[in-house]
Amino acid sequence: MKEPDKQSVSEMVGWLASFGKTERGGVTRLLYSEPWKQAQHALKMLMERSGFETYFDSVGNLFGRVEGSVHKSKTILTGSHIDTVTEGGKYDGAYGIIASFLAVQYLVRKYGRPKKSIEVVSLCEEEGSRFPLTFWGSGNITGIHSLEGVTGITDQKGIPFLKAMKQAGFPIEAYQAPIRKDIERFIELHIEQGIVLEKNKNTIGIVSHIVGQRRFLVKVIGECNHAGTTPMHLRRDAMSTAAELIALLTKTARKTDSDLVATVGQMTINPNVPNVIAGEVEFSLDIRHHHEKVLDSYCQEIFSLFNKKAKQEKVTVSISQWMDGKPVEMNPEMIKLAKEIVQEKGLRFQEMVSGAGHDAQVFGCFCPTILIFVPSKDGISHSPKEITRVEDLDAGVEVLSELLYKLAY
Amino acid sequence: MKEPDKQSVSEMVGWLASFGKTERGGVTRLLYSEPWKQAQHALKMLMERSGFETYFDSVGNLFGRVEGSVHKSKTILTGSHIDTVTEGGKYDGAYGIIASFLAVQYLVRKYGRPKKSIEVVSLCEEEGSRFPLTFWGSGNITGIHSLEGVTGITDQKGIPFLKAMKQAGFPIEAYQAPIRKDIERFIELHIEQGIVLEKNKNTIGIVSHIVGQRRFLVKVIGECNHAGTTPMHLRRDAMSTAAELIALLTKTARKTDSDLVATVGQMTINPNVPNVIAGEVEFSLDIRHHHEKVLDSYCQEIFSLFNKKAKQEKVTVSISQWMDGKPVEMNPEMIKLAKEIVQEKGLRFQEMVSGAGHDAQVFGCFCPTILIFVPSKDGISHSPKEITRVEDLDAGVEVLSELLYKLAY
Repeated sequence: MKEPDKQSVSEMVGWLASFGKTERGGVTRLLYSEPWKQAQHALKMLMERSGFETYFDSVGNLFGRVEGSVHKSKTILTGSHIDTVTEGGKYDGAYGIIASFLAVQYLVRKYGRPKKSIEVVSLCEEEGSRFPLTFWGSGNITGIHSLEGVTGITDQKGIPFLKAMKQAGFPIEAYQAPIRKDIERFIELHIEQGIVLEKNKNTIGIVSHIVGQRRFLVKVIGECNHAGTTPMHLRRDAMSTAAELIALLTKTARKTDSDLVATVGQMTINPNVPNVIAGEVEFSLDIRHHHEKVLDSYCQEIFSLFNKKAKQEKVTVSISQWMDGKPVEMNPEMIKLAKEIVQEKGLRFQEMVSGAGHDAQVFGCFCPTILIFVPSKDGISHSPKEITRVEDLDAGVEVLSELLYKLAY
Repeated sequence: MKEPDKQSVSEMVGWLASFGKTERGGVTRLLYSEPWKQAQHALKMLMERSGFETYFDSVGNLFGRVEGSVHKSKTILTGSHIDTVTEGGKYDGAYGIIASFLAVQYLVRKYGRPKKSIEVVSLCEEEGSRFPLTFWGSGNITGIHSLEGVTGITDQKGIPFLKAMKQAGFPIEAYQAPIRKDIERFIELHIEQGIVLEKNKNTIGIVSHIVGQRRFLVKVIGECNHAGTTPMHLRRDAMSTAAELIALLTKTARKTDSDLVATVGQMTINPNVPNVIAGEVEFSLDIRHHHEKVLDSYCQEIFSLFNKKAKQEKVTVSISQWMDGKPVEMNPEMIKLAKEIVQEKGLRFQEMVSGAGHDAQVFGCFCPTILIFVPSKDGISHSPKEITRVEDLDAGVEVLSELLYKLAY
């Protein structure tokens, strides 16, 4: 694969998407897979040709470094993740890497060497699409992941994590914990993967917080019965009760806070037959907000409503939590700087909360971090239909360049 | 198989259950299957030994006739269905046949030949468990079913209906429409398959009506979206809307009429993933009541609520009806007679509506018909756990004998 001559963001994103391109026009580039390996090595060559000093860490995060002129300066890190979901889009993750490369290349060509060192990073993994873990790339750099956490886990084909890692060129024999002590700050540019910027006709989203996520399984146990011979008042109907709980949690979410989201996306019904009253219904519950306090009070309110309703309907409701991701605040100083830049450039922008998880939330607990969004057409992501307008892609790179200039030069 | 020496109802029901007995202690006796054939022929022999004149009609309904002394008298028919659901219980259908046989045998032994002819019928099919049609037995006798309706239909193994019928000994070459002109009335004794009699501590239920049944598929079409990045007010959530519709229809059913039942037993969700807002939800809706007027007004009310909610939530709701069974009234004169009998005998009883379908509803449109229930323990039916107390089984036979005596002697 040759990188394009004219290095527009859009074309380079297209070039990167050639590694793992699917028949349906999507991209499947799972951690340590052949397309993943090709993409990382192609990026390495690309950065080397532009004079970056490149290297991989022990888990396959790729870095392209431009040494700062000030001796022993700390490093400004900018980038995103190279892995995709299965049948994902071209922009998710990849855009942030390409934009970082182009921004740094532009700055070095125009202004020469920065005062502070800058590194472009192509993080090895964020999505959790091949193995049951997420943020493997940023988690290793920040010290929240280690080899211990992946010993024994396998992908869907039964390939052990460490074997896949070795096959990709990262054997544990050569492993050195990739935690970094020299990172001053992290900047991530990413597509929104939502519809808010588009709806508001804004080009840039400056993220103030990444939401906390709590996930639950709610099980309603009633009693299976004949749909014809059991009067309404003698029923212990798991389905109608589950429906009431979902109606309640939705209504409560709407009135609690405009940034709160609560989603029931999955349900299993037993026995799931038209003329039998359901004896058991289990549904997923995904709750997100950027303040723990709001999450706390919302959960408390709905679970108390659930218990009340369970008593009324003579059913049992059991709630089990299997995820508790804390909200992360982005760095206010960097947000202020980014705002000044977009205002100077006359770009339409907004401050916003990220409802999706990003590497920036891992870095946000480790060093001053900023996350900047460009719009996703129709809010579509994790799909071959994922697309961002060329003007918006370019605007993102411009903002990123300016931000890096102000921070590193 | 030998019939038991001491012909108690309970033992004879057990004997009949030996034809099609399953490993889990249930009964699987599907139309025209080997156990079905064995059961019908065993019943035929049983009735012949007791002096009944027996014969099959062209579709396999078995009759055991006791000729009345009055020349050219019409016939009183009593019985139920011999087929079961897969892994069904011993009592559903079978009890009504055994009870009819024992009642008539008792009457003839005690009082001799009746004035009016009586026939015990073992109807070939009611459940619809092997082929996609129900009431094949009673439907042929009353003229609502004919060969035309089964040409081309097959069971789950692909065996054509007419081939199965032939293999059971009923080839279409020998077919003569089994419609009967000589039936004066029909009496069916059956287990309740519900919990009402037990809850009310009653031994006998005298059915006033068999409910009408309307069945619908309700499809809610919204929009798939990211559970994190889509604010509540920008969602078109098929799941939360479906939940509201189910809550609404349940609430409305409860306040409309105590005899109305509305059940959502089945649901399919697309894509059914915890962190994706559901784009499409389809659910079954089963509505039953014994008055068309109540069904009409309930359906009108909930569908108007559905449309209002669909507009509010910016989703599409489409409703398709695939069943419209009319309510059937049982014969008031026979009900009156049955009441007098149970009162005389000092049995606890109630008049009630049948929420399940029965052969009596087919006969009810054809001739004066009565349906009498005995309790089902815990309301359980269509299960190996189906059971009725011996005292209740005996009480049912006693009431049936007395009713036959009053009508035929």
